[in-house]
Amino acid sequence: MAGSVTFDRVGIIGLGYVGIPLSLRISEVGKTVLGFDIDPGRVAELNAGKSAIKHIPDAEIAAMRAAGFEATTDFSRAGECDALVICVPTPLNKFREPDLSFIVATMDTIAPYLRKGQMISLESTTWPGTTDEVLKPYLDAAGLTVGEDVFLVYSPEREDPGNAHFTTRTIPKVVGGHTPACLAAGVALYEAFIDRVVPVSSTRLAELVKLLENIQRSVNIGLMNEMKVVADAMGLNLFEAVDAAATKPFGFTPYYPGPGIGGHCIPIDPFYLTWKAREYGLHTRFIELAGEINAGMPQYVVDKIVRALNEEGKSLKGAKVLALGIAYKRDVDDMRESPSVFVMEHLRDWGAEVAYSDPNVPVFPKMRQHKFDLASVDLTPESVASYDAVVLLTDHSGFDYDMIRQHARLLVDTRGKYREDGANLRRA
Amino acid sequence: MAGSVTFDRVGIIGLGYVGIPLSLRISEVGKTVLGFDIDPGRVAELNAGKSAIKHIPDAEIAAMRAAGFEATTDFSRAGECDALVICVPTPLNKFREPDLSFIVATMDTIAPYLRKGQMISLESTTWPGTTDEVLKPYLDAAGLTVGEDVFLVYSPEREDPGNAHFTTRTIPKVVGGHTPACLAAGVALYEAFIDRVVPVSSTRLAELVKLLENIQRSVNIGLMNEMKVVADAMGLNLFEAVDAAATKPFGFTPYYPGPGIGGHCIPIDPFYLTWKAREYGLHTRFIELAGEINAGMPQYVVDKIVRALNEEGKSLKGAKVLALGIAYKRDVDDMRESPSVFVMEHLRDWGAEVAYSDPNVPVFPKMRQHKFDLASVDLTPESVASYDAVVLLTDHSGFDYDMIRQHARLLVDTRGKYREDGANLRRA
Repeated sequence: MAGSVTFDRVGIIGLGYVGIPLSLRISEVGKTVLGFDIDPGRVAELNAGKSAIKHIPDAEIAAMRAAGFEATTDFSRAGECDALVICVPTPLNKFREPDLSFIVATMDTIAPYLRKGQMISLESTTWPGTTDEVLKPYLDAAGLTVGEDVFLVYSPEREDPGNAHFTTRTIPKVVGGHTPACLAAGVALYEAFIDRVVPVSSTRLAELVKLLENIQRSVNIGLMNEMKVVADAMGLNLFEAVDAAATKPFGFTPYYPGPGIGGHCIPIDPFYLTWKAREYGLHTRFIELAGEINAGMPQYVVDKIVRALNEEGKSLKGAKVLALGIAYKRDVDDMRESPSVFVMEHLRDWGAEVAYSDPNVPVFPKMRQHKFDLASVDLTPESVASYDAVVLLTDHSGFDYDMIRQHARLLVDTRGKYREDGANLRRA
Repeated sequence: MAGSVTFDRVGIIGLGYVGIPLSLRISEVGKTVLGFDIDPGRVAELNAGKSAIKHIPDAEIAAMRAAGFEATTDFSRAGECDALVICVPTPLNKFREPDLSFIVATMDTIAPYLRKGQMISLESTTWPGTTDEVLKPYLDAAGLTVGEDVFLVYSPEREDPGNAHFTTRTIPKVVGGHTPACLAAGVALYEAFIDRVVPVSSTRLAELVKLLENIQRSVNIGLMNEMKVVADAMGLNLFEAVDAAATKPFGFTPYYPGPGIGGHCIPIDPFYLTWKAREYGLHTRFIELAGEINAGMPQYVVDKIVRALNEEGKSLKGAKVLALGIAYKRDVDDMRESPSVFVMEHLRDWGAEVAYSDPNVPVFPKMRQHKFDLASVDLTPESVASYDAVVLLTDHSGFDYDMIRQHARLLVDTRGKYREDGANLRRA
């Protein structure tokens, strides 16, 4: 039954890092995509054929637009869509609790326009039970029987911006349905534009799958950050050790330490499970430990600078420190949860005079919780040599690493870029 | 200089899971191998062309013997060898501290026979600094200058018994030297019979590499065991979730929960780093947490049986319980640190009448810390149905899983063998 359902007109709610690539892919297979966003600027930009995301060229947006894509802030048009796919953010509030307000606001807004025959798919990362406990009541209240009148599925996004090997199409997509008919409908939708769809037994299970992926990453990075502290104390270079361990052809996966973890997923998602587990009287101790160790790394980096300057009889207070790389990972311009910003704040708190250089971030952007009135410093032998300390935080490929090594008076390397030197720290 | 050194006669000290495969491989390339062991039974067995290890056929031992291999308990013959490779056990004592007594005893015994031109290579897993701090003093005391008169290296064993894809020859070998000349000599030795040798900057770094490999495994299994408890509480099957997460083509490595961890490496090696880190005032919290959670799994499994019987109004006391699989992993006969034994002990402590079935272990072996006067039960529909509960602990390929499922009155599955059923527990 549901297997023969086709969803020709697909609404994508939330036009960001997940919704835009998804719209592009759905449009490619000839379906009509209607994009919804609450940001009129974003909507106007897309309708003008402009990309809002650095790694997606304008030409792709323009081509999608020519193929019938339209963006709108008018959520009453939800009724026009055969399927509605929700790709809105799920952050944490300041008490590190799940903030589902974007999902709830979406459902509040579209509820009056839901109709028989539609499918609702949630793609936002969230705790197991969200689809059943938060979304389904809206459908019940609308008098729509889930699995008969409407289909409800959860299918976690797995976008990896900047991944050169995999695209939206070639990353397998997990789908869980509220009923078997929902699952069949969900598989039918996604199979139309994703090479491999992986059905699982429930929406809750699909919700857990996504959390597991990011929990494993957070814990493994946390483990390597703890090992970094131990290796440093022993005078050993952990980057060299991880590289050597990675020559084992089975049973070891290389993860590297760093100045902390950033981005919109790894620092946040694991705590969705922590929060839900409390309802069952359970603690998620690996998640808590990883969170604590990863969050402590920016201060660990600053301590290194303090000690290194101290050996020269200098204090950090009054010292000039240059932070290299402030985006959260190599070769992106995304600043969300970037540990570089925490390092810079600690440095400022210690009284250092902070500057930064990042080829992808010419001016320090407006951020909700962080403020620096700074622009990126041009890297020249003279400018590099003018700082008391230089700290490599994000290893963009655009940096001239030889020049930096040659001219920095004190260089702290948090990324193992100079691992062949053996040391994490070098002096001119 | 050292690059031109050849080591034609190689002594292997410790003829067990590591030393025997190593002897076989070295013998294959035409070198003469002299094997040392303190166990006269083991030595006689090998000299008679018999294998002491289930997965190594007698024919291989006989062929090596024909090619000139000899085993001996006479450590005074160490002087005959150009290279001495130490492959002795490094367990923990009952306070969970490193027990280097086998290494120390080896060095005490061979010290009088060490001579110029020799190489000493340690392969036993141990804390960073062992080669420098424990082995080198013996060479110093013998008046031999390390790096000039003798060469000292550490090269961790990476044996994986039963691995069908990789052999001693094709598993890359990490080598660290006490000096550059030591490293060059170590690379020359191993390159003669290992396809890829990976030189690293010191013996300490090589020691850390091996620990990292096993620490990562322990922590990842620990994480999945913690997740198992959470998933169970939520009514979700973690095995299904891990399988689905593993469809992500990057960034996720599948590890599975179980009744605890066993074998001679994963439960032990990580604590070598924990112990050494204390010297630097540091805690290895991930290692401790993994150890605690993994060690708690046998009782978690027993709790499941208690609750399941309780629902039928039965106590575990007096119940007949059958443990399926008592070797520490699938399709081996190795009982070292097997979590099945801990489960059986807990069951006995609770007053259950315990039996086991394991096609690879016909009679419960003599173990230093565990004693059961039992033989493996034949599995028939009648025998399976005669137990109040059956618990699958080691998923050997020889079990008839359909028959077990059909006839067990209560079946607790700790290995996800019945994951397609959705439940971890089923009743007849």
